[in-house]
Amino acid sequence: MACIVQKFGGSSVASAEHIKNVADRISNRVSQGDSIVVVVSAMGDTTDDLNRLALSMSQDPNPREMDVLLSTGETITSTLLSMALNDLGVDAISLSGAQAGIITDDVFGRARISEIKTDRIDFELEKGRVVIVAGFQGISSDFDVTTFGRGGSDTTAVALAAAVDASQCEIYTDVAGVYTADPRICSSARPLQEIGYEEMLEMASTGARVMHARAVEIGELYDVPILVLSSFNEDADGTLIHREITMEQGNKVRGVAHQDKVAKVTVRGVPDQPGIAVHLFGPLAAANVSVDTIVQNASVEKLTDMTFTIAPEDLTAALKVVNEVKLSLGAMEIISEIDLGTVSIIGTGMASAPGFAALMFKTLYENNINIEMISTSDIRITCVVKADKVHDAVNALHSTFELDVVPE
Amino acid sequence: MACIVQKFGGSSVASAEHIKNVADRISNRVSQGDSIVVVVSAMGDTTDDLNRLALSMSQDPNPREMDVLLSTGETITSTLLSMALNDLGVDAISLSGAQAGIITDDVFGRARISEIKTDRIDFELEKGRVVIVAGFQGISSDFDVTTFGRGGSDTTAVALAAAVDASQCEIYTDVAGVYTADPRICSSARPLQEIGYEEMLEMASTGARVMHARAVEIGELYDVPILVLSSFNEDADGTLIHREITMEQGNKVRGVAHQDKVAKVTVRGVPDQPGIAVHLFGPLAAANVSVDTIVQNASVEKLTDMTFTIAPEDLTAALKVVNEVKLSLGAMEIISEIDLGTVSIIGTGMASAPGFAALMFKTLYENNINIEMISTSDIRITCVVKADKVHDAVNALHSTFELDVVPE
Repeated sequence: MACIVQKFGGSSVASAEHIKNVADRISNRVSQGDSIVVVVSAMGDTTDDLNRLALSMSQDPNPREMDVLLSTGETITSTLLSMALNDLGVDAISLSGAQAGIITDDVFGRARISEIKTDRIDFELEKGRVVIVAGFQGISSDFDVTTFGRGGSDTTAVALAAAVDASQCEIYTDVAGVYTADPRICSSARPLQEIGYEEMLEMASTGARVMHARAVEIGELYDVPILVLSSFNEDADGTLIHREITMEQGNKVRGVAHQDKVAKVTVRGVPDQPGIAVHLFGPLAAANVSVDTIVQNASVEKLTDMTFTIAPEDLTAALKVVNEVKLSLGAMEIISEIDLGTVSIIGTGMASAPGFAALMFKTLYENNINIEMISTSDIRITCVVKADKVHDAVNALHSTFELDVVPE
Repeated sequence: MACIVQKFGGSSVASAEHIKNVADRISNRVSQGDSIVVVVSAMGDTTDDLNRLALSMSQDPNPREMDVLLSTGETITSTLLSMALNDLGVDAISLSGAQAGIITDDVFGRARISEIKTDRIDFELEKGRVVIVAGFQGISSDFDVTTFGRGGSDTTAVALAAAVDASQCEIYTDVAGVYTADPRICSSARPLQEIGYEEMLEMASTGARVMHARAVEIGELYDVPILVLSSFNEDADGTLIHREITMEQGNKVRGVAHQDKVAKVTVRGVPDQPGIAVHLFGPLAAANVSVDTIVQNASVEKLTDMTFTIAPEDLTAALKVVNEVKLSLGAMEIISEIDLGTVSIIGTGMASAPGFAALMFKTLYENNINIEMISTSDIRITCVVKADKVHDAVNALHSTFELDVVPE
């Protein structure tokens, strides 16, 4: 008996009607003999509504209480889906994160799973029930409700798939899979049949929002095949995220990712001595500023420049920190720039073939797009460009690397 | 250090603004040095909204899932109130029924409390925190969420007051206490300073909706003084429900209660033999028809009439049952009447003083109100009258028994 985990996101369960459609879909799958664990998100805007309620109580709501409050959104969906399945004659039961045995640390708002005790899930599956788990939530060892932050229900789904040794984790979203580029800005973008975990991680961290990096990391760690599917188009095949990439190897770039808005901060003329990075990025991390890309240029006359990118909404906080440490770093000047974006090409094949970077830079040059900053990993090359050039860059690169061509 | 339990009902926490007012009120109380456990209901119409959602999934939602769904309403209020208190600098923590150790049987929708394990509450109180418990809910020994049905948050509050040995349980409502009669129909009605448990039970079961009978029963069993207060009028003294009635003894009738709508069913000409009541009321109970008042008249030529009152919405179900058993009972005829109501006078002093019944009947007669049926307990006399005469009857009796006169 194959056990699979299916996760339905907020847009898939946005209304009562949506939830009934999801129930129909699960019911069909049950009749094929699969044993199913379902993970659900909160309905549509529920989480936003609860956030607003909390902010009407306090500008800085207590994090423990916030987690209990937000967790009710997923709980509500789980009970409604269970009712809808029962109404179709399918035996089903909803479980909270706590009941599903999802034990976490006690870092409210971004808790991490430490252990999953599957006794209750196993018990219910053995009874032949569909087990519906409220996503995004767990319980600390002190018996307090915790939540996982962004992408939390994906994390629940992949972690549960690992814990119950599911053959596959299916993530139902409002898109037909992982695309070669964002189809909203690149008309020739197409869904990938498959992608590796590392590639997916690079796609997620550079703007492809279809799956949260954290869930992909768990999938990689426990070797859980993740199939990303559309809730709304049953005919689409979706994208399989897994370890062995067997097809499409001829095309070494897997996809183009982008970020519409980033900000850049440059600390100029810093005396080049050990510890600069520690004294700059330590305080930024303490101020909860998440730094995307860091570039340090070659030292000229023992002075160096340090540049990093951040989300535009973090710029004020970042400049405050940087100005505070400017003196101790001995820096000459702080320069910041907003209205930037990034474009990245991603693919495992690139590591051993240096021609990709050159072809990327040539493509941008020929399209009159200036590169403000470059950063690379083994399987990714990212260029920072002006925000108003991002969409042009995505389309040009998508065409250059022949991502519009469906592989044989 | 006095420990008190305060319960705020749905109208007291109907909006964000209401919840902040409740937080202010609790904060003031904390500054007086009291140790406080708070029980909250769901905000305003939340429970109705959740019910509607459930019915959109299934005409007959799974009861276990229903309980999980409904319990989120109280949970949300508890977190919001905790945030508001934290924002005022008052250390507070919200607990679900499960976290508060409220263990119940597994009868979903109308679970009964079997035990309260107060370890977590004690721990939080010792830390000097206000403990906010989500009302109306508990957890079964199988770790499933249960709810208590109507008046559930009152039940939580009084049961917790008993468990933590609180000096008093304060019930905040949208009225200023328990009235001598319903102030909406009797302009001279006034809040009572105090009332006995038994009297309150009779008031509740014959129409005074300010507190649910079940909570009063627990209060009586564990001798918990219950103070019913207005959320919206801090100057009102409220009504103390307790064992020792020390004042107002001169006025033996404590209050007038009424029900606007009841239906009456008479089974006529039943051969008078043992077991009639069993064969009639057993099937009615099995069909979930709750019977209020039963009268069996004297046997004439070995034939007797059996009359009972029910809620009008149960009449169809009741007639179905009665017609099914008519043959086996050997009854001649089934008569039913709708458009009836009840009026009751209640007071512990009445048991030893037979003049009250006579004065009640005389008052109704002088006001041209015909009595359709009479039933009595030690501390209550109830008359069934035409529905359109109920309000006249309440006002006439309120005046006759001098309930408008404030005691010295």
